[in-house]
Amino acid sequence: MRILVIGATGTIGRAVVKSLGMRHEVIGASRQRAERRFDLAEPDSIRALFRDVGPVDAVVSAAGAAKFAPLAELSDADVQFSLANKLMGQVNLVRYGAEHVNDGGSFTLTSGVLSHSPMPGSAAISLVNAGLEGFARAAALELPRGIRVNVVSPPWVTETLIAYKMDPAPGRSARDVAELYEQSVEGYETGQVIEFPST
Amino acid sequence: MRILVIGATGTIGRAVVKSLGMRHEVIGASRQRAERRFDLAEPDSIRALFRDVGPVDAVVSAAGAAKFAPLAELSDADVQFSLANKLMGQVNLVRYGAEHVNDGGSFTLTSGVLSHSPMPGSAAISLVNAGLEGFARAAALELPRGIRVNVVSPPWVTETLIAYKMDPAPGRSARDVAELYEQSVEGYETGQVIEFPST
Repeated sequence: MRILVIGATGTIGRAVVKSLGMRHEVIGASRQRAERRFDLAEPDSIRALFRDVGPVDAVVSAAGAAKFAPLAELSDADVQFSLANKLMGQVNLVRYGAEHVNDGGSFTLTSGVLSHSPMPGSAAISLVNAGLEGFARAAALELPRGIRVNVVSPPWVTETLIAYKMDPAPGRSARDVAELYEQSVEGYETGQVIEFPST
Repeated sequence: MRILVIGATGTIGRAVVKSLGMRHEVIGASRQRAERRFDLAEPDSIRALFRDVGPVDAVVSAAGAAKFAPLAELSDADVQFSLANKLMGQVNLVRYGAEHVNDGGSFTLTSGVLSHSPMPGSAAISLVNAGLEGFARAAALELPRGIRVNVVSPPWVTETLIAYKMDPAPGRSARDVAELYEQSVEGYETGQVIEFPST
């Protein structure tokens, strides 16, 4: 398969590129330092990326920022940033990208555990993650030519927890998490939230 | 209790005003034809409403529009309208309204079954409904002074199905649905999606 990976230079993105790259042709794109630079929050940038890359069999997004901040301090600008970036950026990958994906291809987006397991400070992220999951469930019913769409809901990633100086024990490695993306890309399911079983 | 009901003139809103009005002081607001007019999609309008109404014990929203349209025909403007109205309008009720709600008060927002049971044409609505549920789960962890927030996920309402010339059989009456709002306002739960058990 020819696979476009968005957010290719992030902790999860790098692991996804490595694992999918063993069996497929992977094109990496990210805000910084990848084969293709682009800005997920800019619709024109997404359209240009698809035009430049040409037809692909799968689009994987491990990208998208949203604001973590106490509810009382979350500004209008913080909310708009979160909506434009992680939420609408990934929704627009599907909306603008569908015509560039080959028959039977797929989209794999990224939400996260805060969708259903929130914590103080996660209001914007929980909104965005849950909204993405709702979108994918619905969009799966309408994508043409057998194109599928799933959302991977990664657990906390060990590498991220260590970077944030948090307890790494509850995390899973980025390499493990990459398996969820492989399941979406190489499997048959659509409209699903793909995650590890809760332990 | 002193209760502000937003969307007081809609099918569900009227039933909520009627049932809560039997035991409480209800102030109705809506885009048209209510005691207070305002526009959910306009942050300044929400702020002005709370200033005008003064302190309340509960805010109930049965308001918010989102675009139902085939995914391929859903325009950027349709998506932005849906985000600004049903999603951010209700999120902003909580963000701007919290300081106007008395200790131990509550917010009750409205999502809908399309959050988890989508249909073709529901991509924007499913996104909005699921996003609201994610927001409420998280915001419940941080609201001050014992203020609660829940989301009611109404089933299809009989009156609406009849108005759309659809089969009314799977619907529940607006009067039944109003009980879900009473449960949120008069109960103790927070961060919950309140709905009828699936049958």
